[in-house]
Amino acid sequence: MEGDPTLQLRVFDLNCWAIRYLSKRRQERIQLIGDMLRQERFDLVLLQEVRGAKPRAVHGAVPELCHVLGICHMETPVLGVIGSGLCVFSRFTILDTLLYQYSLNGYPYMLQHGDWFCGKSVGLVIIKISGIIFNVYVTHLHAEYCREKDAYLPHRLVQAWELAQFIRHTSKAADVVLLGGDLNMHPEDVGIRLLRGWTGLRDAFAEAKHFEGCKDGCTLIPSNCFTIKTELLPFPLGIRIDYILYKAISSFTVKCEELRTTTGSAPGMDIPFSDHEAVMATLHIRRQGEAASATLSTAELALVDVVTEARTEVGVGLRAAQRQRYSTGRLAVLALLLLLLQAAAVLGTLAGLGGQPFPKLSFSLLAFLAIGILLLATGLHLFHTIEVKMLQGTEEQMRMVLRALQERPSDG
Amino acid sequence: MEGDPTLQLRVFDLNCWAIRYLSKRRQERIQLIGDMLRQERFDLVLLQEVRGAKPRAVHGAVPELCHVLGICHMETPVLGVIGSGLCVFSRFTILDTLLYQYSLNGYPYMLQHGDWFCGKSVGLVIIKISGIIFNVYVTHLHAEYCREKDAYLPHRLVQAWELAQFIRHTSKAADVVLLGGDLNMHPEDVGIRLLRGWTGLRDAFAEAKHFEGCKDGCTLIPSNCFTIKTELLPFPLGIRIDYILYKAISSFTVKCEELRTTTGSAPGMDIPFSDHEAVMATLHIRRQGEAASATLSTAELALVDVVTEARTEVGVGLRAAQRQRYSTGRLAVLALLLLLLQAAAVLGTLAGLGGQPFPKLSFSLLAFLAIGILLLATGLHLFHTIEVKMLQGTEEQMRMVLRALQERPSDG
Repeated sequence: MEGDPTLQLRVFDLNCWAIRYLSKRRQERIQLIGDMLRQERFDLVLLQEVRGAKPRAVHGAVPELCHVLGICHMETPVLGVIGSGLCVFSRFTILDTLLYQYSLNGYPYMLQHGDWFCGKSVGLVIIKISGIIFNVYVTHLHAEYCREKDAYLPHRLVQAWELAQFIRHTSKAADVVLLGGDLNMHPEDVGIRLLRGWTGLRDAFAEAKHFEGCKDGCTLIPSNCFTIKTELLPFPLGIRIDYILYKAISSFTVKCEELRTTTGSAPGMDIPFSDHEAVMATLHIRRQGEAASATLSTAELALVDVVTEARTEVGVGLRAAQRQRYSTGRLAVLALLLLLLQAAAVLGTLAGLGGQPFPKLSFSLLAFLAIGILLLATGLHLFHTIEVKMLQGTEEQMRMVLRALQERPSDG
Repeated sequence: MEGDPTLQLRVFDLNCWAIRYLSKRRQERIQLIGDMLRQERFDLVLLQEVRGAKPRAVHGAVPELCHVLGICHMETPVLGVIGSGLCVFSRFTILDTLLYQYSLNGYPYMLQHGDWFCGKSVGLVIIKISGIIFNVYVTHLHAEYCREKDAYLPHRLVQAWELAQFIRHTSKAADVVLLGGDLNMHPEDVGIRLLRGWTGLRDAFAEAKHFEGCKDGCTLIPSNCFTIKTELLPFPLGIRIDYILYKAISSFTVKCEELRTTTGSAPGMDIPFSDHEAVMATLHIRRQGEAASATLSTAELALVDVVTEARTEVGVGLRAAQRQRYSTGRLAVLALLLLLLQAAAVLGTLAGLGGQPFPKLSFSLLAFLAIGILLLATGLHLFHTIEVKMLQGTEEQMRMVLRALQERPSDG
């Protein structure tokens, strides 16, 4: 077995920002992406934010792609009105797929942000290459809108946790695990550390022998003409939020030979492929006698720390959600009381009890206002109720995991 | 290993019909269920349709339950407004949990049916007993409202398929797999055959050495005072739609020693525990040299047949959904045209072009009607669009699996 040849796998990952009606110069960029994919002939292509005529749009742009790459789209829509936006092409036959929806997806009052429409699920694609089983995951987590006052952090942590749990539970039979996607978190963020710690996945950028591309591997850079400059003000080099992560489970090793990113505008064009930069990794996979499981116990100790930290953050989010649930509930009750009062006044006047009639216009306006507030507050109350339960559920799961980790520190 | 003692596991499964505001005599029945669970001391309790103060409601009714059973609730709410309604108690420490949401959940115009509020997800609970890893699944699939003209069949098939896929993908490291729940399908239905064939799970009722309870193991019986008698008219004995299924994966065997159901009213009471009967199984688990994998190739052939049959049904549903998507879309366009026509007429009158003014009341009524139809038709159109994509996705997955099955008939 030791003499097995090395398997080379070239992986492409990009948040395409190809949402119909929302993304700028979408058709043109899809065409560009298609052309590039046709030239480069990657083994695995993991795309996010492909919404609309996808994956036919990408197919259409690259008619050969269906033949060149083994075909596969994973544009299975989810419960909401909106699909997952995930799309996978593989040069190897896909054996099986599974889509998992996250429970929390940000606040409904952030509709203006395009990626609220995506970022809801993680897709699993299983392929087998030369007898090696690959579990390939693609996902898109929640964006962060304001780093200083990041109200989304608990939601992203819940998603990172669910992603890690989904990978752990579904990759037990895999030889190699790959994860690509827009995780919307900086490399040192607690969510990334939680994901890495809890799944054992390694960051291709940190492990790569050769790197070529934007400084520090950034994937959202100020020189890309589609990025929002004000959001990147605190980060003059840009930020790294798109990742390729990997690990070998059984007796295999994975090494990242090369990692590349695009650097703004596409070669010879005036526009980039997307507002994100693409991440391209060349991985070498080898069969090996023993899986490399170095310093397990220290890793476990670090894991306890990161899960504890994540649980604290989720707890903070939980208490905020509980306060919001309470205040929206109280607002709804107040609006209802106002309406009842008005109804009583109207009935009183009709029954001839009251003295003067009310000024009709302001009375109706007040009623409309009360109804509006009632509906809005009830909707928000329901939303925050779900949020509270979700955060509670995650906190409980983390508590359970921490207990298990502390009871048996030698059992990964 | 051969001499290992037999492990006995007592499993309880019940659709509790405990949805706040919707279910009759809910508190009273929860109390009854709690009392019974306290007396019987099962190892695993799998409940569905527990919605409201649950699982505290069940805890509250049975204060000791938290201590007696190892505690665990899995009332993690899902994306919709409504929680999963699933609840698990285990006498053994729960190592980990995962909740998976189904993509399709019936038609929105069936809101009056209580179980539309549940039946959205499958929960996985992992426990370890004497070194044996148990993956315990609990779920609640869609109800069937009319057996003759079952418009839901494709939706239930999609759910059965997703359930089977979820179990397959997450149970790779388990020694024993258990599934309990209200599957809302008769034993011979294509969905049950698909689930059994694709996961290898066996039906505790069919395998039980001793059986005691309702004739044919029925779990929805006419003599239960809460069942809807007209729905059971074609089935004088009742129907069997609640199941406990199991299988051993690695070198273990599972045998069902005894299966029992409740038979309507609770002992000494005038009301039953629920509108469903509970299913109680006593399982014997033994370590064994070799997993019993008899007649694999004939099973595979049967599997190809059942997947083909399911795929045909999903295809029928797909074409129906495509027709509905088309007709609701057309209706929306017509309503929009009517509105535009009215707007043009109003503008014409305002500009002093037209002759007579319109009768105001009927004009406004028509406008309201058009707006109502527009909103409704657009909503339905969106729903059917999602439905079409979902059914397409499932059909595609089944096609992929069939290809894989036919290519390698000896590989389970």
